[in-house]
Amino acid sequence: MRLKQYLPFLEWLPGYRRDILVSDLVAAVIVTIMLIPQSLAYALLAGLPAQVGLYASILPLVFYALFGTSRTLSVGPVAVASLMTAAALGAIAEPGSPEYIGGAVLLAVMSGLMLVAMGVLRLGFLANFLSHPVISGFITASGVVIAASQLKHILGVQASGHNLLDIGGTLLANIGDTNLPTLLIGSGALVFLLFARKKLKALLALAGVTGRFADIVTKTAPILAVVVTTLLAWGLGLDQQGVKVVGTVPAGLPQLTLPTMDLAVWQQLALGALLISIVGFVESVSVGQTLAAKRRQRIDPDQELIGLGAANLSSGFSGGMPVTGGFSRSVVNFDAGAETPAAGAFTAVGIALATLFLTPAIAYLPTATLAATIIVAVSTLIDFPALLRTWRYSRTDFVAMLATIVLTLGHSVESGIVAGVALSIGLFLYRTSRPHSALIGRVPGTEHFRNVLRHQVETRPELAMLRVDESLYFANARFLEETVMELLSKQPALQDVVLVCPAVNLIDASALESLEAINERLVDAGVRLHLSEVKGPVMDRLRDTEFLRHLGGQVFLSSYEAWQTLSRPRQAAA
Amino acid sequence: MRLKQYLPFLEWLPGYRRDILVSDLVAAVIVTIMLIPQSLAYALLAGLPAQVGLYASILPLVFYALFGTSRTLSVGPVAVASLMTAAALGAIAEPGSPEYIGGAVLLAVMSGLMLVAMGVLRLGFLANFLSHPVISGFITASGVVIAASQLKHILGVQASGHNLLDIGGTLLANIGDTNLPTLLIGSGALVFLLFARKKLKALLALAGVTGRFADIVTKTAPILAVVVTTLLAWGLGLDQQGVKVVGTVPAGLPQLTLPTMDLAVWQQLALGALLISIVGFVESVSVGQTLAAKRRQRIDPDQELIGLGAANLSSGFSGGMPVTGGFSRSVVNFDAGAETPAAGAFTAVGIALATLFLTPAIAYLPTATLAATIIVAVSTLIDFPALLRTWRYSRTDFVAMLATIVLTLGHSVESGIVAGVALSIGLFLYRTSRPHSALIGRVPGTEHFRNVLRHQVETRPELAMLRVDESLYFANARFLEETVMELLSKQPALQDVVLVCPAVNLIDASALESLEAINERLVDAGVRLHLSEVKGPVMDRLRDTEFLRHLGGQVFLSSYEAWQTLSRPRQAAA
Repeated sequence: MRLKQYLPFLEWLPGYRRDILVSDLVAAVIVTIMLIPQSLAYALLAGLPAQVGLYASILPLVFYALFGTSRTLSVGPVAVASLMTAAALGAIAEPGSPEYIGGAVLLAVMSGLMLVAMGVLRLGFLANFLSHPVISGFITASGVVIAASQLKHILGVQASGHNLLDIGGTLLANIGDTNLPTLLIGSGALVFLLFARKKLKALLALAGVTGRFADIVTKTAPILAVVVTTLLAWGLGLDQQGVKVVGTVPAGLPQLTLPTMDLAVWQQLALGALLISIVGFVESVSVGQTLAAKRRQRIDPDQELIGLGAANLSSGFSGGMPVTGGFSRSVVNFDAGAETPAAGAFTAVGIALATLFLTPAIAYLPTATLAATIIVAVSTLIDFPALLRTWRYSRTDFVAMLATIVLTLGHSVESGIVAGVALSIGLFLYRTSRPHSALIGRVPGTEHFRNVLRHQVETRPELAMLRVDESLYFANARFLEETVMELLSKQPALQDVVLVCPAVNLIDASALESLEAINERLVDAGVRLHLSEVKGPVMDRLRDTEFLRHLGGQVFLSSYEAWQTLSRPRQAAA
Repeated sequence: MRLKQYLPFLEWLPGYRRDILVSDLVAAVIVTIMLIPQSLAYALLAGLPAQVGLYASILPLVFYALFGTSRTLSVGPVAVASLMTAAALGAIAEPGSPEYIGGAVLLAVMSGLMLVAMGVLRLGFLANFLSHPVISGFITASGVVIAASQLKHILGVQASGHNLLDIGGTLLANIGDTNLPTLLIGSGALVFLLFARKKLKALLALAGVTGRFADIVTKTAPILAVVVTTLLAWGLGLDQQGVKVVGTVPAGLPQLTLPTMDLAVWQQLALGALLISIVGFVESVSVGQTLAAKRRQRIDPDQELIGLGAANLSSGFSGGMPVTGGFSRSVVNFDAGAETPAAGAFTAVGIALATLFLTPAIAYLPTATLAATIIVAVSTLIDFPALLRTWRYSRTDFVAMLATIVLTLGHSVESGIVAGVALSIGLFLYRTSRPHSALIGRVPGTEHFRNVLRHQVETRPELAMLRVDESLYFANARFLEETVMELLSKQPALQDVVLVCPAVNLIDASALESLEAINERLVDAGVRLHLSEVKGPVMDRLRDTEFLRHLGGQVFLSSYEAWQTLSRPRQAAA
């Protein structure tokens, strides 16, 4: 049982049959075709040599197949993680330098270690720090930054920077250097890919090809763009006319690579690795859960941490870069019929074969083509209307989202996400610091009690009944103290306060101290504190405490009982 | 109204009468007598010249009287803040050096700016970060470190460090240098003060003196110890025999002092200033609320931030050190009959007179006496049994408390409190990340529904009714996703899921996205999602959302209505 939890392949491998093998193989072939241009493109986006993207698409897929719990998640380099990689490495070295390439290895290893540690310690809940509005804003802004960063390849000019301002500025400064053949290749590929995405399906439908197969054909359009533009560049010798091509890529499988042991570099990359880990994890789990639900399967988020961690460790040790689950690729894998993670392992074999035999063919691949595939891929990530939807639903969430977008676009991915998380937690703590509570009174002639502000109810100046609608802890305990103190100062005839607790699931040690303080202060003021409707498990924990021994009043089973008892003259009740 | 909120003295000053004046004056005299040795002692504890303690007890009291909301809180140097001051300054300069003294000024100014900013932005809730167990563990451990740090003065030896290990180690290394006259003075004062604290009240009672007056007499014992040992030191020329005395203290009122503008120093002291601010604020509010309750008054925590901030700013600009509300002094002030903050302002006049005229008399005051007053004062802060009480009540709170104590004792006050806060928030987020929820079923023959695990209830394999017992937000939204996905994978006949929401007060944007994701995934799996018992305000916000438009099922008013409707054959219900 426990073993299966940590080695999820024990679940599906024993029942592996020939028909599953066929399904997985078909999916693997399709995903391989899709992954080759993607892995090259995302290496380019990260500022790394093309082969690093291929290396990151071999072992990680095998290790995820062993340790991951999603049956269909396709792991490898993805756009947002590649941008974050570039941003983290840009602070420590020049793109393409040995330190830069070594930094990518270290980022993958650190990210792997962090993910595995979080998985073993079952810290997956930490991902909750990333609220939906923050992650959604972050991905939109990242998509914009990524698309902007690729324009230089389409135009064939120099540009640099990791935010929209820097990229835009350097791009405008150099736009006069635009290389026409590059622009033709790049914009041609862009138009073709956009056409494939928007219209090809409709055309295929006219030709009688529909459903999954049509979907898959449209998703493999990038490989066609790669093949055609590579042949063009080779045939016309475009590299002699200023068209930048991928160039010679070393053939052969990745070698064992060890990360630097320079602790200063570890420290510099720590925040970047943490953010890549958490963003990647949140996205993977979200894709994985969506796909799993379609087949009534389930993924285990804590084990996902271990699966993604193992994938990143293997990526680092084989000279790769940070990896995570990709959305579009996983959907293709799912739609193409993948049934088990073995499809991922077979994809790894496909990429390994490409690394061994296809690298000479890649030499003439124009980077403009790769940039076009990136731009088209990230265009689906950009969702500005989400800002409007969030604004309509919740102003506080909107603030966190907007801050994330503005900082990601205007400063850096790291500051964007850190600000978003800090704001979300701040707003969350602010919100939870004011527990819902209401003064209640008796609905005349009944045993029911309702909010005095919303209903016509009986109340008495010597008695205040305060219904607490949430668990009491740490974050909101002091607010309760203030609420009761305010009651005390505003209701001069007050003799009894009843805390009505039907929705209190937990009273932590801080809240217990607050209750003690409230009780002491009320005793000092000659007022008795009572409780009513305390849930069983909460009462069990309270029973052994000083608080209950010192309680000025009593514990009532119902509000009505409290009302009745405390309505008698005080001498009789005491 | 608004003006009164920011200038609370407008509340009490117009009604100021002669009898209140008399009460306030009496209290001011008593507090002045108590504050003189305390202010000298806490300056010593912070590693500062004696007069800095006096300076910090003049203007801050006046400014707190203008801006603070507690009628009886006595502001000035306190033990824990002085230890934290020493710890923060120890990292940047040698005790007694001009940089060190300037650092104390800067700490007070920064702390004042932070407090005022938090007050204006109404960020008082941030103090909730400091859970009761963390603050209680921190104060216990600080008390131990403070007492240990004062032993060197009692023995007349050298010792240094800001944690128990360093202090203990250096103390043991130098214990051979113990100075006998110093030890006699120090231990004599210690025994006398302990006697005054434990037995004097009983003796006074025998002599017919009881109640408040007896309390106050016992609390002014330190001034007697100061007077007697000063006279002894002067009369016997003990300073010639190795007894360390306060020495020449410049007479005269404090001068306007400006903090350094060296930003590197600001940066180095920022964390220290923040922690001093928050710890001081939490302690002040707690003392203030306790005293206010006794007279059915109330304090406004956000305005308290402004009051304490103004006090610290004035302390810094007049060459003082960080100040906050002191517990024992405030109790004496209250017991002596102080009725308005004017008592604090009168105390300031008393200290100013002392600074002008008494400083020559202080020259022969042995530091051993001051150390004895500190040790006796902090002995009341130490509460190790609280560890046991917390252990019994809540293991998670115990962990945070223990970590705070161990790190404060073994490493530093800053690491202790930071670790405690980080652990509390982590544990809090962990706890809130799993909302209470229960699968419910129908109590046979009734319209009531109960937890399937605790009651004998009817359930059906096509229907799952999940009661959510807490608000849905950010921190727990993903857990709900997982809970529903687990249901889906475990209940193969499932056709309908009802989320029963009687305790849901809020659904934030993250939770809304999760509900949308749950709905989509259920639709993909051929299952309908329904809601029931949604509260009015929650329903109002949901009404305009995509979620409700895409909802696979319906919104029921009651669980019984859901049960009835969904019990019909599916074709009929759909």
